[in-house]
Amino acid sequence: MGTLHYLMTRTGLGEDGDHMHVMAISLFVTLLCACIVLGHLLEENRWMNESITALVLGFCTGIIVLVTSKGSSSHILQFNEELFFIYLLPPIIFNAGFQVKKKQFFRNFVAIMLFGVVGVFISFAIISAGCSFVFPKLGLGKLLIQDYLALGTIFSATDSVCTLQVLSQDDTPLLYSLVFGEGVVNDATSVVLFRAVQKLTFDDFTGLEVLQMTGSFLYLFFSSTVLGIMTGLLSAYIIKTLYFGRHSTDREIAIMTLMAYLSYVLAELLFLSGILTVFFCGIVMSHYTWHNVTESSRVTTKHAFATMSFIAETFIFLYVGMDALDVDKWKMATTTLGQSFGLFSTLLVLILVGRAAFVFPLSALSNYIRKSSNTKIGIRQQVIIWWAGLMRGAVSIALAFNQFTISGDAKNPEFATAITTTIGVVLFSTVVFGMLTKPLINWLLPVYLRSYSISDTSDPPSPKDLNSINDFHVPLLLDSEQRANGGLFNGMAPRRSSLSMLLAAPTSYIHNLWRSFDDSYMRPVFGGRGFVPYVPGYLSIAEEDEHNSSHF
Amino acid sequence: MGTLHYLMTRTGLGEDGDHMHVMAISLFVTLLCACIVLGHLLEENRWMNESITALVLGFCTGIIVLVTSKGSSSHILQFNEELFFIYLLPPIIFNAGFQVKKKQFFRNFVAIMLFGVVGVFISFAIISAGCSFVFPKLGLGKLLIQDYLALGTIFSATDSVCTLQVLSQDDTPLLYSLVFGEGVVNDATSVVLFRAVQKLTFDDFTGLEVLQMTGSFLYLFFSSTVLGIMTGLLSAYIIKTLYFGRHSTDREIAIMTLMAYLSYVLAELLFLSGILTVFFCGIVMSHYTWHNVTESSRVTTKHAFATMSFIAETFIFLYVGMDALDVDKWKMATTTLGQSFGLFSTLLVLILVGRAAFVFPLSALSNYIRKSSNTKIGIRQQVIIWWAGLMRGAVSIALAFNQFTISGDAKNPEFATAITTTIGVVLFSTVVFGMLTKPLINWLLPVYLRSYSISDTSDPPSPKDLNSINDFHVPLLLDSEQRANGGLFNGMAPRRSSLSMLLAAPTSYIHNLWRSFDDSYMRPVFGGRGFVPYVPGYLSIAEEDEHNSSHF
Repeated sequence: MGTLHYLMTRTGLGEDGDHMHVMAISLFVTLLCACIVLGHLLEENRWMNESITALVLGFCTGIIVLVTSKGSSSHILQFNEELFFIYLLPPIIFNAGFQVKKKQFFRNFVAIMLFGVVGVFISFAIISAGCSFVFPKLGLGKLLIQDYLALGTIFSATDSVCTLQVLSQDDTPLLYSLVFGEGVVNDATSVVLFRAVQKLTFDDFTGLEVLQMTGSFLYLFFSSTVLGIMTGLLSAYIIKTLYFGRHSTDREIAIMTLMAYLSYVLAELLFLSGILTVFFCGIVMSHYTWHNVTESSRVTTKHAFATMSFIAETFIFLYVGMDALDVDKWKMATTTLGQSFGLFSTLLVLILVGRAAFVFPLSALSNYIRKSSNTKIGIRQQVIIWWAGLMRGAVSIALAFNQFTISGDAKNPEFATAITTTIGVVLFSTVVFGMLTKPLINWLLPVYLRSYSISDTSDPPSPKDLNSINDFHVPLLLDSEQRANGGLFNGMAPRRSSLSMLLAAPTSYIHNLWRSFDDSYMRPVFGGRGFVPYVPGYLSIAEEDEHNSSHF
Repeated sequence: MGTLHYLMTRTGLGEDGDHMHVMAISLFVTLLCACIVLGHLLEENRWMNESITALVLGFCTGIIVLVTSKGSSSHILQFNEELFFIYLLPPIIFNAGFQVKKKQFFRNFVAIMLFGVVGVFISFAIISAGCSFVFPKLGLGKLLIQDYLALGTIFSATDSVCTLQVLSQDDTPLLYSLVFGEGVVNDATSVVLFRAVQKLTFDDFTGLEVLQMTGSFLYLFFSSTVLGIMTGLLSAYIIKTLYFGRHSTDREIAIMTLMAYLSYVLAELLFLSGILTVFFCGIVMSHYTWHNVTESSRVTTKHAFATMSFIAETFIFLYVGMDALDVDKWKMATTTLGQSFGLFSTLLVLILVGRAAFVFPLSALSNYIRKSSNTKIGIRQQVIIWWAGLMRGAVSIALAFNQFTISGDAKNPEFATAITTTIGVVLFSTVVFGMLTKPLINWLLPVYLRSYSISDTSDPPSPKDLNSINDFHVPLLLDSEQRANGGLFNGMAPRRSSLSMLLAAPTSYIHNLWRSFDDSYMRPVFGGRGFVPYVPGYLSIAEEDEHNSSHF
């Protein structure tokens, strides 16, 4: 904070020379407006999306700035970890949790965890091994084993932001929930893995270390999730309790926004994964808190959170685009064109192979676990999952800066090369892989197939769907009996014991248990749909359908 | 930006020791939540308001931080000009412009300008003269004439944020528009005056200098206003043009938010008054842009802007409260308790006298100009205007830091004393004057008198009100005739020439001219109510009435 203050007073009110910061802000805000307008104009274009527009616009602006300043001011717009992790990432991930289709997400929970945790480790192993094998042959010998492991994590971190723009939650719900869910868990896993790698000492690398790492990951995953859920529930409880017969829309919106952000910074403060925390906080808020507030608050939070996320996303891509022209590092990197190209293509190949090495085997595993044929992941969908997760984004850049720079400056030419190569891979994967994703989906999953992929998860009416409808307000004790009856009446499921239910359809069973618990214990305390005076107004017509407020 | 980057990378992802920033954010967000909850609980209390709650809470937290850190960490939370001017002030002032009752504001335009411009100069002269006369006698001799002039501007800057919380736009519309309008203009005037004082050289202080200052003020006032209006119109035009038969709520909200902020930073970039610019941008956006967007966007912008402003206000008061415990400066200030008390009470008296010296004479002048008896400012209202503008706030502190510190550290004991005294005056005026304002209004303007003060400005139906209704869609050429007819039919106004109209009711005449111009030229290009497909839905019932969208 001392330096923050130093910085802040430098750009003082009356001091003429220090308008750099204001100028940078003006430039960025203008570019953001331009991106939004261009994005609107290009919306129907099948190749472009908002990310690529922002990336290209940022890149062009970077060139102009560089030319105008005669190559000196590249540092003005240098990538900045804190801005990214503390201010830009939280609204994006929170909004994703807030708007995610919860039922879909939890139904695919096992597959998401397989991809997001086991997948990262597989990809990490392949990329690290590949780099340490190929890089010395390309003349980049000064990297330590720790640097190779860091490269492995840096390029295993997929870009959940870009995924959100490429896949549509409504058109391909299964793919969206798998790829995006994986992205969120992946973010957490790679950051944890990255921290573990940085702390690693190679003097005593034993099985105990591996066990410790596993333990620390499990601790991190569970405590982050619990923190997010607790904060979300607290916000629901506060708003429900404070109601007092008078609503205050501004206060409600402020409490929701601030507590969502609080969950993130608290997690960071406790060295947990803020990404996981704020994601689960978003889910809990949309299930409970959102139903406790006024109708104006509901419309406002829904759109305001989406807009904040949208602006942050666009900002990140602008930023990454501009940052590509980090002249100092390009000058410092002493590699030849051939070397650079070698490193670049090695990494791209490793990313492609590393992802293929876990998507296809783990999909097969997931299909084996699921048994029921209509929730299996088809081969076409596997290809899309593989492709849509190839993009690398701001998380990779942030990690690379953390590993290979001190205060933004590279320590040596090898490190400068690592940074420039990372930037190159991020730009290429976002633009080229990103552009090809939409056409690929259209090619592999034409609309007639896509309707099948929707029916995968909601149609046709399976026993569990019927049960879900029947036990809407049934308390815990009556649950299994009632469900069996419901099944009987519809002539689809015979009376079964709880155990056989669990074996036959575990997800459905857990879901029903949760629903009973929610109705009996959670909703009376924390509110939620049906537990606050519900005024059927415009929202039920115009907004309720759009906002995914289904039970999970 | 170099230092920004330095700061940012310091609080890196994996670096353990640098959690100070995250800790500060967590602390502030937690306190903000606490303020909102407490504010809701204390809403019906006649003495408290949200500002005072935040100030007291900030002060208490400051004590706790100080005690916990054993007196060392006072600097962590030191006041920060840029955070205030670049991030916290713009949303507050923009929202004020966005939600202000435009008709009311423009009807009182002359009085507002008198208070906001002439008033500041009077108050400035009195406070500067008083300080330079009294301070040396209290043993504070090392201040230069420039410092006294700076003190004059610092303590002439009223606190428009606190005013918004004390006065109600619905209960006392005339007072609100006068005091708040004055506050906005006052902010601009004092910042301009402050810059002029800082640049002043006393070698050649001639009439030419005064003329130059006047010219620079006029230039600043007009170009800031024009910039704000242009940005607002541009946003309306972009959204109207981009419509293309498909709306995008998130993009609309993003464009409105970003362009509002852009107007502010552009003004700052061009050394204009961002406060004036963003205020007029808000007015134009609520008149045109707001009517061009979807209903969801309207609800969202209305509440999201109000919430942003609300959070920023609360943050500022928390911040000022914490900042009061700037131990380094308290230690550095070598004044005795008696001296401190002398300085403190001198300033308070000068503020009281300085404000009285312009409110009462200028009110009389304004009443003389207005002629018509039902828009005169009564003596009770004059007392409230005088009292409600006594609070000094964050602008005063920001200016004091700018004048008396280098990078946050005071240059000498006298300057440290100036800072601590400023903080004392701000705390005292906000808490004590602020607490007494609500009771004072209730005492001077009981509800039966207040209903009169509403009728002041809208009831009973005066000719201009009838005219306003009649010429709703009448083009410019037909205007005066139609208006006269309207008056004739209602038996209130005889047929008159434009000139006699202008002399009799100048405000009304200008207003009608503006309305004709707006209908004929502006609204077809920039949209606005009635010029975009208007779906009568929930908004017309629930929201339209609340949002003040009347013509101006």
